[in-house]
Amino acid sequence: MENSKMSGKQSILFANPPYIIAGSSVAGKKEGEGPLGKHFDEIQEDPMFGGKTWEEAESRMMRRAADLVIEHAGLKNTDIRYMVGGDLLGQLIATSFGIMELEIPLFGVYGACSTMGESIAVGSVLVDGGFSDKVMAITSSHFAGAEKQFRFPLAYGSQRPLATSWTVTGSGAVIIDKEDKRSEEQLQSEAPVCVKGVTIGRIVDYGIKDSMNMGACMAPSAYKTISANFNDLGVKPEYYDKIITGDLGYIGKDILIDLLKQDGFDITKNHMDCGIEMFDKETQDTHSGGSGCGCSAITLTGYVLPKLRRREWKRVLFVPTGALLSTVSFNEGNPVPGIAHAVVIEGL
Amino acid sequence: MENSKMSGKQSILFANPPYIIAGSSVAGKKEGEGPLGKHFDEIQEDPMFGGKTWEEAESRMMRRAADLVIEHAGLKNTDIRYMVGGDLLGQLIATSFGIMELEIPLFGVYGACSTMGESIAVGSVLVDGGFSDKVMAITSSHFAGAEKQFRFPLAYGSQRPLATSWTVTGSGAVIIDKEDKRSEEQLQSEAPVCVKGVTIGRIVDYGIKDSMNMGACMAPSAYKTISANFNDLGVKPEYYDKIITGDLGYIGKDILIDLLKQDGFDITKNHMDCGIEMFDKETQDTHSGGSGCGCSAITLTGYVLPKLRRREWKRVLFVPTGALLSTVSFNEGNPVPGIAHAVVIEGL
Repeated sequence: MENSKMSGKQSILFANPPYIIAGSSVAGKKEGEGPLGKHFDEIQEDPMFGGKTWEEAESRMMRRAADLVIEHAGLKNTDIRYMVGGDLLGQLIATSFGIMELEIPLFGVYGACSTMGESIAVGSVLVDGGFSDKVMAITSSHFAGAEKQFRFPLAYGSQRPLATSWTVTGSGAVIIDKEDKRSEEQLQSEAPVCVKGVTIGRIVDYGIKDSMNMGACMAPSAYKTISANFNDLGVKPEYYDKIITGDLGYIGKDILIDLLKQDGFDITKNHMDCGIEMFDKETQDTHSGGSGCGCSAITLTGYVLPKLRRREWKRVLFVPTGALLSTVSFNEGNPVPGIAHAVVIEGL
Repeated sequence: MENSKMSGKQSILFANPPYIIAGSSVAGKKEGEGPLGKHFDEIQEDPMFGGKTWEEAESRMMRRAADLVIEHAGLKNTDIRYMVGGDLLGQLIATSFGIMELEIPLFGVYGACSTMGESIAVGSVLVDGGFSDKVMAITSSHFAGAEKQFRFPLAYGSQRPLATSWTVTGSGAVIIDKEDKRSEEQLQSEAPVCVKGVTIGRIVDYGIKDSMNMGACMAPSAYKTISANFNDLGVKPEYYDKIITGDLGYIGKDILIDLLKQDGFDITKNHMDCGIEMFDKETQDTHSGGSGCGCSAITLTGYVLPKLRRREWKRVLFVPTGALLSTVSFNEGNPVPGIAHAVVIEGL
């Protein structure tokens, strides 16, 4: 097919790779105290973000990330044609109530903690296909809201097994456009960054039922998506300066590396996991690392995109991973399958 | 922009309108006894669909719709490049557990009961943009699962106010492709049907807090999306043989018609609501009509697409509507905003 952008079995290579013209990152206090803290646009000391409920807190945080990314791009909300976004809460209420006043047509998406990958994929498809100019991709997670949604109320003071991760309080957004209109001078000092392609993941279920070990649940899906990306594009791990998973944590990272070795791929040298980077292992007591939609989103917008803009990295594979469960599916004895979407992001 | 398919503020007109090459509809017993019953591919007498929980029942129903649409198209699951789907349950578990064994890369979407519109929109964008050949768009809802998710366990025997609608037990799927490969003869007797364009909705909140009156909650979003469609495409209501909302029911229908009259649009002659068509008002005791993602999906695949294939209708505007709430947002005193996505479907 003449204008096909299909690559291999499940990847897309864009004909005119859309640009990420701006990013924003809003984080909670604990995330601000972590190793990446200094990279975030804003750190909010109040876990309620001025709201009255955990859900409202998350909505307010997401709204702040949306406002900031629009400001960073020098735009108004009416300049954004479509928004692609979602979150972890049932029926996406953090997103619905967070961004509705912006009045931007919305594609609501759900990929658990892989949502930022899916949002950027859909946004890039809309732009590269000529269906839209500026699209915002956004997601969020909030520690307290996620604990309430998936586990126990915080007030119970439940103990957490060592395999658990800590849901990141954070919201990240990017604006995707068909061109980067900054001045020549700006583009000299800061590289334009584009979305070269995406690999859409399948649901992968290895039968793991331990919802307190999300890393193990999600690692197989990261493995399948990364392996598919290498095969579809005909590249090796070294093609990327970094292969950045979302929130596998210490346990999931080891499993991923082992699984990829079965296919002959060694990513030990260039793998990075946002969940591992987010918190200090010794002092922050988050056990297996950070997790949540916001974990990969703010690491991307706060840390990874600036690295590409400064030309310290040339090309990364951003692979947020999601665990597909609800309290109902878990309580009914189902396993926790995973899904991972990969985005090839390149500095020019 | 040369290859732009952007139309007006929020619509897309496809350059090479993708074809809906097949559809499937699986319905529950009560839906089978309703006025549309004879049009559905399969009616399942067992509300559990052979499963052990309501959630498993819905997953099995969705899987059946997926298998059927693949069969109707004369394909195998490996022929489908991407799947776009979602449902009403928290964290989309009906979809995740229903379709995961098909191993098709998945875009998970959530638009409440507007999901079929969003799925078809994303699927058509993927095909028209050259990013994919065959895409499946799918959704489902199950009466008992939805009652458990959003209201009260059935065993409580709660009374239902007259404004409530009855969640349809049903799953519908379509396959979207860049061409319809049936023989000339077949295409003579059955019109090819394509997706000419879409209008992506904004979240609309009129402050209505009555979750037992979804029609009133969603009508404003249907109004905004339909009005945007008319304005973006520069057409009048008569452009469509039918303007088909998803599940406004009797109350929502009246509100929609009144609101559109404010903008000078009279759709009384060609409006149809899937929720109203689904059940017999006198004998089936569903109050305001049917609702749920499955309501519009199986009405589309069982009733609307065949009408277009038989050339009884030439062009319809399919507008599923969603109510954006969760039990948490409702219990915290939030209103119930709506969202509606419109799809222009045309027989050739």
